[in-house]
Amino acid sequence: MTTKQLFIDLNGDMGESFGAYRIGHDEELAKVVTSANIACGFHAGDPAVMRRTVKLCLEHGVEVGAHPGLPDLMGFGRRAMQITPEEAYDLVLYQAGALQGFVRAEGGRMRHVKPHGALYNMAAVQRPLAESIAKAVYRLDPELILFGLAGSELIRAAESIGLRAASEAFADRTYRADGTLTPRTDPEAVIRDARQAADQAVRMVCEGKVKSLQGDEVALAADTLCIHGDGPEALALATLIKERLQHAGVAVRPYGI
Amino acid sequence: MTTKQLFIDLNGDMGESFGAYRIGHDEELAKVVTSANIACGFHAGDPAVMRRTVKLCLEHGVEVGAHPGLPDLMGFGRRAMQITPEEAYDLVLYQAGALQGFVRAEGGRMRHVKPHGALYNMAAVQRPLAESIAKAVYRLDPELILFGLAGSELIRAAESIGLRAASEAFADRTYRADGTLTPRTDPEAVIRDARQAADQAVRMVCEGKVKSLQGDEVALAADTLCIHGDGPEALALATLIKERLQHAGVAVRPYGI
Amino acid sequence: MTTKQLFIDLNGDMGESFGAYRIGHDEELAKVVTSANIACGFHAGDPAVMRRTVKLCLEHGVEVGAHPGLPDLMGFGRRAMQITPEEAYDLVLYQAGALQGFVRAEGGRMRHVKPHGALYNMAAVQRPLAESIAKAVYRLDPELILFGLAGSELIRAAESIGLRAASEAFADRTYRADGTLTPRTDPEAVIRDARQAADQAVRMVCEGKVKSLQGDEVALAADTLCIHGDGPEALALATLIKERLQHAGVAVRPYGI
Amino acid sequence: MTTKQLFIDLNGDMGESFGAYRIGHDEELAKVVTSANIACGFHAGDPAVMRRTVKLCLEHGVEVGAHPGLPDLMGFGRRAMQITPEEAYDLVLYQAGALQGFVRAEGGRMRHVKPHGALYNMAAVQRPLAESIAKAVYRLDPELILFGLAGSELIRAAESIGLRAASEAFADRTYRADGTLTPRTDPEAVIRDARQAADQAVRMVCEGKVKSLQGDEVALAADTLCIHGDGPEALALATLIKERLQHAGVAVRPYGI
Repeated sequence: MTTKQLFIDLNGDMGESFGAYRIGHDEELAKVVTSANIACGFHAGDPAVMRRTVKLCLEHGVEVGAHPGLPDLMGFGRRAMQITPEEAYDLVLYQAGALQGFVRAEGGRMRHVKPHGALYNMAAVQRPLAESIAKAVYRLDPELILFGLAGSELIRAAESIGLRAASEAFADRTYRADGTLTPRTDPEAVIRDARQAADQAVRMVCEGKVKSLQGDEVALAADTLCIHGDGPEALALATLIKERLQHAGVAVRPYGI
Repeated sequence: MTTKQLFIDLNGDMGESFGAYRIGHDEELAKVVTSANIACGFHAGDPAVMRRTVKLCLEHGVEVGAHPGLPDLMGFGRRAMQITPEEAYDLVLYQAGALQGFVRAEGGRMRHVKPHGALYNMAAVQRPLAESIAKAVYRLDPELILFGLAGSELIRAAESIGLRAASEAFADRTYRADGTLTPRTDPEAVIRDARQAADQAVRMVCEGKVKSLQGDEVALAADTLCIHGDGPEALALATLIKERLQHAGVAVRPYGI
Repeated sequence: MTTKQLFIDLNGDMGESFGAYRIGHDEELAKVVTSANIACGFHAGDPAVMRRTVKLCLEHGVEVGAHPGLPDLMGFGRRAMQITPEEAYDLVLYQAGALQGFVRAEGGRMRHVKPHGALYNMAAVQRPLAESIAKAVYRLDPELILFGLAGSELIRAAESIGLRAASEAFADRTYRADGTLTPRTDPEAVIRDARQAADQAVRMVCEGKVKSLQGDEVALAADTLCIHGDGPEALALATLIKERLQHAGVAVRPYGI
Repeated sequence: MTTKQLFIDLNGDMGESFGAYRIGHDEELAKVVTSANIACGFHAGDPAVMRRTVKLCLEHGVEVGAHPGLPDLMGFGRRAMQITPEEAYDLVLYQAGALQGFVRAEGGRMRHVKPHGALYNMAAVQRPLAESIAKAVYRLDPELILFGLAGSELIRAAESIGLRAASEAFADRTYRADGTLTPRTDPEAVIRDARQAADQAVRMVCEGKVKSLQGDEVALAADTLCIHGDGPEALALATLIKERLQHAGVAVRPYGI
């Protein structure tokens, strides 16, 4: 009797610094994650930061992806904007193209695209927006993988046009019975206990399940787990999750390679 | 006895609109030029404008190039900024990469890069800056052609690393004895008479010469002529230049194809 | 028996150019309107344009107001953004303060503030946002007048804190039975016939009424009419409206002076 | 025989955070300085940061000034730009006006303006630029005080139009025999020893002199000392300087009040 090898990708947001401003601990995070979502200058990041972050990732064998956001540096791309699907197409293509330039210049290959912040949330529920984003990614390079919330419109939109998609799950967020995330307005939206978060990560990957805040068993097929790196605690949690997964026999490796 | 076929490229700046703002007459200019330098969002242009302009050029068989500028929308990229060669590298790679994304998405191929405004002027005389720009273009795609002022450091920097370069000349600008342009601060910097400008264009291409403001004969090897399209007069001059060149037996076609 | 003198303010958006980009016909519009809403650099306008526009208005005796918008130059401030009331307070105070600086420097006095585009529309229906905007204006200068859609939350918010408000009506927009504007998505939202628009303007001012698209008589107390100046037709309509109002015995003069 | 009471102002840059990005330790710095130069959104700062910083200063009795910079957030206003005197006038008026709005709204009064970074350096040596800046400040409010490098064109430009000026000196920078700062390209430009910097501060204030890097005694009339607050060491130095000055009998208080 053989056991199917389990594996999971760990992705983290990187390259969020801008000019004289620093956000994140990219050097440390690059040692933990297998895929990096690199900001592209609209909500965070600038050309110099993009170049350095791409280089850092390639040196650590971390797969490089674009992390396009809304044109709102002041709001860090977290404020919803009423944009048309066509505008979403243009914004994603522009930013992913810019990052692709840096990856090519460093001799690498861009592997995925993950929308950031409000754009990610909007694309999870607005199908026309999701379709435009998927189309932009596909037309830039049909080999790219689109990262989106597990069960979201973005995942469905990608699949409907033959674009590979990676379903993302969150170790440190609570879920509702329908498989969606508890909104951040709820005080129980975030799991603050590291062990509990690591447990949830292991269950997600090994059993394909998560227990909702209401106690239901919810099926969840995760291809990649989102890892935060914006502080000592976040990095400690990231390391714990990775160790626990590996201890459970899960291979931590980039998705779709 | 055979005569060598003369040919010249005509390039024009396009895609300079931004949001609700309109600059240029791209529809008309696309019928005249053979190469388009498309603004990339830093000094002009936005993602939607870039997509539409790329499409317009491909439909008209106009070769597409990136027109990266300094990050100064308010100053239209015309104000010199003290940037490091590394910053120039990053700015060019970011913008050219972004445009390349749109060209790929439309099924085309980006053929050249021409720095805009103050960046163009700075790269003409600052060798380290010129080298950084040439390197950025080369690393993005070694098949690209770098457009620069004839006789400038930018042309030399490109050639020194094996990047193809196209020497640009101006039909409607006067030259000095050393082959440089008369500065715009001089009232005689611009040739306002259309016939005189067209004459200069024909001589540049057919004889490889230009008469300086001081009356000297100056050798000038032009691969591409800069064509303006920002008004009815500019378009009329562009058309006149093209007709006069063709009448003189010059083939008007993209450079380096 | 005496007749009460009727009067109305005509306001127009001005100073919407940016850098090398031109929008509007401010020179002509300044001869028609009595109040100018000057863009403040977030959705349109820049410091040089603001200075010139303030000067132009003061020379023509046009009252100067700030026209703050969302931080979205690419979308001309027309795309709704999910901002908090506190963010609205900050955005309005920043922009109105900046314009006030130019007015003081020219020896004038800023008289009013009118939110632009999506911010105007959001403030018409979101009470907390409206309150923040009113508070920002009041704290900058309690003598300022806040321009808002007649019957909107913005007008009520101003009045609730003792800030003067001017109710705005539109000559060239159709109304619904409840006094709100027909949304622009409706093909009948805009009145394209100049005489019909002028008729509506005269009725609004002289009778305090407007006929809704559905045929109802709707009461409407307008203190100021919005005048467009973005083309030859708009300017012709503006002039027609002004003439018709004056012919009907209405004094066209700034509100609240 | 009486001794004239010596006094000095200590000024520090504040409000340099932007959106999600944090720079500086404003809470701590507000306890040390007597004048704050608050960023105005072009090179750093945003409307929310400006509001909070103004409030913080007023609570601590710190005098509030505007710190306008070049429109270059990516370069933190440190990259020289070729702007015209008129553009400098507009940039300063816009930014100082915006900050003035926040100060008024909080019930305070803006007391000074100090150009930032490259604008400060350019204004120190370019007289036409210095005159435009002085004029902008004067026209905004003739009671304002313009902070500039001691002995610079900016100080002279202010004095020539009757605007009060405060000459700034640096405790932790070395000087040349002509009273100018050693350029930062020189490894000895910055004094890294805290005691040496404090000694220089005390001598500047008590004796009106500084010893140049070459050993000359240079006369220097300082009205305000620049204090850095961008790290634990900077804050420790600031505190040391203040203590040493007070111990020497110098009154540390705002300039010109």
